[in-house]
Amino acid sequence: MSNPSPPRVHPLSQLSANEIRRSSVLVRALHPPEFGLDFKSITLNEPNKKLVLEFLDAEHSRRPTPPVIDRESIVSYYVKGNEQPYEALLNVTKDTVVYNRQLGPNVHGRPDELEIEAVKKLVLEDSNVNEEIRNLGIDDMSLVVCAVWIYGTDATNNYRRMFQCYLYLRDPGNPSELDSNYYAFPLPISPVVEAVGQRIIRIDRLPTGADRTLKPGEQYKPPPPNEYMPQYQTLRKDLKPLIVIQPDGASFEIGEESGSQTLKWQKWYFRINFNGREGMMLYDVRYDGRPLFYRISLSELNVSYADPRNPFHRKCAFDLGDHGAGYSANNLKLGCDCLGAIYYLSAYLSTGDGDVMLKENCICIHEQDNGIGWKHTNPRTGNAGITRNRELVLQSIITLNNYDYVFAFVFNQAGEISYEVRATGILSTQPIDKDISVPWGTFMHPGVLASHHQHFFSLRLDPMIDGIQNRVVYEEALGIPRSDFNLHGTGYYTEETAIYKSGGFDLDSSKGRVFKIQNSQVLNPVNKEPVGYKVVVPDFQKIIADPGSYNYKRTPFADHNIYVTKYKKNELYAAGRYTNQSRGGDGLRTWANRKDKVVNEDIVIWIQFAINHIPRVEDFPVMPCDTLRVCLKPVNFFDKNPALDVPPPTQERNGSCTLS
Amino acid sequence: MSNPSPPRVHPLSQLSANEIRRSSVLVRALHPPEFGLDFKSITLNEPNKKLVLEFLDAEHSRRPTPPVIDRESIVSYYVKGNEQPYEALLNVTKDTVVYNRQLGPNVHGRPDELEIEAVKKLVLEDSNVNEEIRNLGIDDMSLVVCAVWIYGTDATNNYRRMFQCYLYLRDPGNPSELDSNYYAFPLPISPVVEAVGQRIIRIDRLPTGADRTLKPGEQYKPPPPNEYMPQYQTLRKDLKPLIVIQPDGASFEIGEESGSQTLKWQKWYFRINFNGREGMMLYDVRYDGRPLFYRISLSELNVSYADPRNPFHRKCAFDLGDHGAGYSANNLKLGCDCLGAIYYLSAYLSTGDGDVMLKENCICIHEQDNGIGWKHTNPRTGNAGITRNRELVLQSIITLNNYDYVFAFVFNQAGEISYEVRATGILSTQPIDKDISVPWGTFMHPGVLASHHQHFFSLRLDPMIDGIQNRVVYEEALGIPRSDFNLHGTGYYTEETAIYKSGGFDLDSSKGRVFKIQNSQVLNPVNKEPVGYKVVVPDFQKIIADPGSYNYKRTPFADHNIYVTKYKKNELYAAGRYTNQSRGGDGLRTWANRKDKVVNEDIVIWIQFAINHIPRVEDFPVMPCDTLRVCLKPVNFFDKNPALDVPPPTQERNGSCTLS
Repeated sequence: MSNPSPPRVHPLSQLSANEIRRSSVLVRALHPPEFGLDFKSITLNEPNKKLVLEFLDAEHSRRPTPPVIDRESIVSYYVKGNEQPYEALLNVTKDTVVYNRQLGPNVHGRPDELEIEAVKKLVLEDSNVNEEIRNLGIDDMSLVVCAVWIYGTDATNNYRRMFQCYLYLRDPGNPSELDSNYYAFPLPISPVVEAVGQRIIRIDRLPTGADRTLKPGEQYKPPPPNEYMPQYQTLRKDLKPLIVIQPDGASFEIGEESGSQTLKWQKWYFRINFNGREGMMLYDVRYDGRPLFYRISLSELNVSYADPRNPFHRKCAFDLGDHGAGYSANNLKLGCDCLGAIYYLSAYLSTGDGDVMLKENCICIHEQDNGIGWKHTNPRTGNAGITRNRELVLQSIITLNNYDYVFAFVFNQAGEISYEVRATGILSTQPIDKDISVPWGTFMHPGVLASHHQHFFSLRLDPMIDGIQNRVVYEEALGIPRSDFNLHGTGYYTEETAIYKSGGFDLDSSKGRVFKIQNSQVLNPVNKEPVGYKVVVPDFQKIIADPGSYNYKRTPFADHNIYVTKYKKNELYAAGRYTNQSRGGDGLRTWANRKDKVVNEDIVIWIQFAINHIPRVEDFPVMPCDTLRVCLKPVNFFDKNPALDVPPPTQERNGSCTLS
Repeated sequence: MSNPSPPRVHPLSQLSANEIRRSSVLVRALHPPEFGLDFKSITLNEPNKKLVLEFLDAEHSRRPTPPVIDRESIVSYYVKGNEQPYEALLNVTKDTVVYNRQLGPNVHGRPDELEIEAVKKLVLEDSNVNEEIRNLGIDDMSLVVCAVWIYGTDATNNYRRMFQCYLYLRDPGNPSELDSNYYAFPLPISPVVEAVGQRIIRIDRLPTGADRTLKPGEQYKPPPPNEYMPQYQTLRKDLKPLIVIQPDGASFEIGEESGSQTLKWQKWYFRINFNGREGMMLYDVRYDGRPLFYRISLSELNVSYADPRNPFHRKCAFDLGDHGAGYSANNLKLGCDCLGAIYYLSAYLSTGDGDVMLKENCICIHEQDNGIGWKHTNPRTGNAGITRNRELVLQSIITLNNYDYVFAFVFNQAGEISYEVRATGILSTQPIDKDISVPWGTFMHPGVLASHHQHFFSLRLDPMIDGIQNRVVYEEALGIPRSDFNLHGTGYYTEETAIYKSGGFDLDSSKGRVFKIQNSQVLNPVNKEPVGYKVVVPDFQKIIADPGSYNYKRTPFADHNIYVTKYKKNELYAAGRYTNQSRGGDGLRTWANRKDKVVNEDIVIWIQFAINHIPRVEDFPVMPCDTLRVCLKPVNFFDKNPALDVPPPTQERNGSCTLS
């Protein structure tokens, strides 16, 4: 038994290119060779947490790590011609199939990149579509752009996997410009494609007035163009360069390992990963050796639109579950243009034909200065103690048809972790008649309506604050009743309430309610309070669609600021694993309804935040970033301000200069 | 009549050094020369808005400006030995007194810098105080530090002007260190000084347990020190330099005028001013020539504490009205350490003896990069349009005993103005016995309690969005009832409600309520909606002190997110002009209760935001910045994204580099 030991693979590393390929080979072997397979995703099935925790414990205490934990992949795929997808769990260490099953009715896989291209081609080459386009008065089919949307769900017969395609025109006055903003030219017809048969089953006419009236036969009159690319602007000339120089390089260190990377920066340590669905994610987040989070990732992002008219009532996209933040990631090196010293990471993802694509530069890492970190001037001596707030940023940017999102994990020196989202890109537009206004959308440009829509984000935190047994409490500030003790009615106090059963919970600014994640077994050495982190997150308007609607049923996280559940393997995605045309019933609300004990247990916290986007003219032709931040701040976790030892800034070191 | 014309003075310029000195000379002449006078403030009385608007109109249309508007100052002062202050309005162009009056009972002026020093000396040299200190077991009086606090208000006989002094110790183990953090050594006695008589009327014993019990005779046992200055830290060594270089200088232009400065940056134009009370303020804010705001300033900042026990129930400080953001401003050149190319402004303020002090470098101005401004990647071509978000920052930092605030106006290229507050510095501490915990504060360090407290900020906006007649509306997003039209329950719409009568109004996240300032007479050329700006501000816990309490009565702005009033001259400060020991009745609630018509009128919007600071151990010995931001964003004000013409970033221009 003197086989060479296998190469070291960290149990939390994403699948290697080889593991992805072996997975598709294993799956292909389950079916006759003449069957065509469409691979929807091939991704790591994370090992049992107990085994990983043992591994991490050994790793961090520099003991020999346990033997390699078997590597598993989970594969979502279709057999061509079949309405229902398959799911296979594979052991890619032993090349064995743990299970392979076809999933029940109304479960649909995500569209993959090959399928999207095939649908576009089908639509744009279809003779009926071509005829409808000509009927609109458009002769040049090469100007037509097809945006393939998920079909969504309504109460009617959509048990089949379908696509709703919205059509746009590149500027007909400038036909050679491939980067024309076609969202300024939305066409009033929308072909519907049936996925299995790869055929157009109907062409919807879009309502363009203030009611449901359709106007077939009406010609399309293109408005003036509204371009966002720089070659179409008179660029301002008075912006002088601002250059960030890091002469000694960056302050972080990346540990090179295949499949995942560790990062060390300013007492922080964590492992970076990237998969097709969640995109950038973090494992094993520690500060100064103390464990904080087992896993952090964005778990879902839903966008639901306000226009109640067919087919817009079905515009309800799961940008992670239906599309995938990893699959949609930008190549940042080509357009990120961060400042300073930048490190790029790339990742392997699966393709629609079971092969491997390299997502180049899908994460960029850099430091930034975010102003003053802390300051105090002693008014008696005039002497100031001051530090600046240096931040570490891990950024990933995704594009989903029209919209773009900038996602970032931001770490600072005061023990804080933020998750920042910048919503940008172009609104999903639809045609509207001249001089019309409707209360569910904004008239953005002649012929262009942008409907209101809600973006719901769910950030999943799997905490291990000084250990895996944690709890969530909420603190409220309440007035002390008048008495001899509170003679003047000015006193108030705080009260902590522990959450005992899994469920959904809400902010309440009238009570100053704050949620904290605590380890009640570990007390702060100074004040004997449980160590913890608090969640600082803006409140949001919960889902407006009514509780009987599919939008409500399908987004079982858009109704509460915070959910707390007991950890259960594979409960990773707030709206469930299969979101495409889902009908609800899976996901967070269902899991929370188990009413599991969640105090001093292995728990998961789901933080929701949202934008109710009521478009403004300023959001066109491309929208300035709308920024949201969730911040996790230590509360009685440290024994003093953890940024106390940050060196003070000096003019020599900063190289700043005075203007006069 | 060929007198030389007087030097040009802009009507919105602050008082010159000469005007301040002439004011005190004019006031001295009103009293017999042997009377001693204490000057509390000498500040500009702004001219009638109508006259100023005519002036601005001429100025911006490059017509000759109207003749110089008479300059007026408003002087708050005491005749020594008198309980009630005087207020004089002076014409300093003509050297005449418009009025001079002694104010009624229970009106008290602010402490000035000379008075504060006198009270410190009185307390530290007082034999009874010295004896009490010795009784605590402290021999070295030179270690004792006296923090002079306003007295506050309760129902008892405090018609006299008084000070509550809190005593601390510099580290007795390190007596030569003048920058020792004395807030780690709070003493349990608190002398009360009567201002007019300049005498100590009693020495309060502070409660140190969990109830009201006092423990006279108990010795003070100093805890270990807890220092924040860098010389007491083992500084981290792994932070590499990050340098901002602006090789061509900054992109803004300052117009040099005595008394105020104009600033032009990226289509923005405004006038910067600085006074003793509000500190940094802006007048005549315009974008691309279009008027937006006549005046913007922080109008008040109150901090009210939770401990109901004597004397802490009176800890309720008006940091602007009692102290003044201008008088408390830091010299930034000595410790600001902004990055890049920095411009500093200085200002003249009055002193306690009617003379002039130069507040050097009380405002710093610089540009910063705040990440991606907008981005879209065309998934069909892979080409990205992108800009970075360059910001202009005007920063002022104030120190009030223990606390420090970083205030900043932040402008960007998308037509947005933000007001940012970073709360930092040291908590106001009080003594606490060993192993005690109380629900109205946090045990921070042995012997050190930090009580909970609420910070309430009120930002005053005097808008002139495309003209002086404006209105405030609130927009809500509401579900469309189920019907044939909203068949699937997914639809929603927005509704705007105009505010007709002055009053206080609240956010309501359940309706997605957003407040907008509009000019209903000017319609957006694209969609014919009124041009406007929306207010993006975080919700907060309203004042917890009960409505019968003085804390509640004295802070008539801490109960609503937004107030809208009709403009009235001299209604500038949310809690009224005289806040020291005020008893309520003046200020925002009173003005709003006039129920003036505020639609299509000259109106004022007051935006409240707050921190309920429940201290964490991490906030000691100095607290990491807690940041709040109010943002004003255009809504249908422009005809497209105003940042569209920002040049795209390029690697050559940014000088960024790739790590590997």
